[in-house]
Amino acid sequence: MNILIIGATGDIGRSIHKELETRHVVIAASRNTPSASVNLLDTASIQQLLERNGSIDALVIAAGEPHFGPLERMSPAQFRQGLEGKLLGQIDAALIAQQSLKDQGSITLTSGIIGESVVRYGACASAVNGALEGFVRAAACEMPRGIRINVISPGLVESSVEKIGQYFSGFDPIPNSRVAAAYARSVEGIETGQIYRVR
Amino acid sequence: MNILIIGATGDIGRSIHKELETRHVVIAASRNTPSASVNLLDTASIQQLLERNGSIDALVIAAGEPHFGPLERMSPAQFRQGLEGKLLGQIDAALIAQQSLKDQGSITLTSGIIGESVVRYGACASAVNGALEGFVRAAACEMPRGIRINVISPGLVESSVEKIGQYFSGFDPIPNSRVAAAYARSVEGIETGQIYRVR
Repeated sequence: MNILIIGATGDIGRSIHKELETRHVVIAASRNTPSASVNLLDTASIQQLLERNGSIDALVIAAGEPHFGPLERMSPAQFRQGLEGKLLGQIDAALIAQQSLKDQGSITLTSGIIGESVVRYGACASAVNGALEGFVRAAACEMPRGIRINVISPGLVESSVEKIGQYFSGFDPIPNSRVAAAYARSVEGIETGQIYRVR
Repeated sequence: MNILIIGATGDIGRSIHKELETRHVVIAASRNTPSASVNLLDTASIQQLLERNGSIDALVIAAGEPHFGPLERMSPAQFRQGLEGKLLGQIDAALIAQQSLKDQGSITLTSGIIGESVVRYGACASAVNGALEGFVRAAACEMPRGIRINVISPGLVESSVEKIGQYFSGFDPIPNSRVAAAYARSVEGIETGQIYRVR
């Protein structure tokens, strides 16, 4: 398969890349990848990335930062910024990719454990993850041409402990390879509308 | 209690008003209520409504229209419009109200059965409802001054059958009074972070 990973240079993206490149042609895209640069906040940029890379079987997105911060001081503007950062880019890419992916292709998005589990400062992330999971369950039933869509909900991955572990006190870190395997399951499997919770 | 209902002239809002006015002072606000007009798409308008009405114990929101439409033709802009319409106004109002409600006050938002159940053309509504429920579960743990927050997820209410029944083929309509009772339970009860599913 030809697989396009957006967010391929992130903690999780690198592990997905490693898992999938043993069996597939992987195009690694990110904000900082000169050969396949994409800005998820800009729908034209997503459109261009898909057009430039021709015939894609599977789109995988592991990108986006929600807003973390105390609820009591969270402004409507900060909440919106968090939606832009993690929710809207992924939805936009899914809405655009359904037009251009190959028949029977697949789209795999990324939510996260926050929402199922509540963490301090995580109200925006909870909303974002709830939205992604709601969208995927419904969109799966309407995707054209046999295209599937799933979402991976990773727990705290080992490689992210240093950066965001402070928000996840008491959470048992998960090996990156186990999270990457869930993406492979979505890409290579036959299910649609699933939330793969890696715990 | 002093209870502010936003969306008080809608199908569900009218039933909530009727249920709560027997025991409380109800301020009925909506887009079209001259004495208490509010535009949920405008944070300044929400702020003004709360300031003008002084000391409020409970804010109830039963307003907002998500985007309904075929996924295959859904544009990123239409999806955003759906978020604005039903998600962001409610979240904005909750973020603003946490500053001004009385201690031990409450906020009650409205999601819906779409998301838990998938309906045709409902992918945006599924995302919106998932976001609302994720937000409420998390925000409940961070609300200041003992303020509670819950969300009511109504099924198809009897009074909405004529307007939106076409999206809900096979769904058993629910008496408005049963839905209104769930709002009373949220306002008058002691629970927080709950999703009251009226089915």
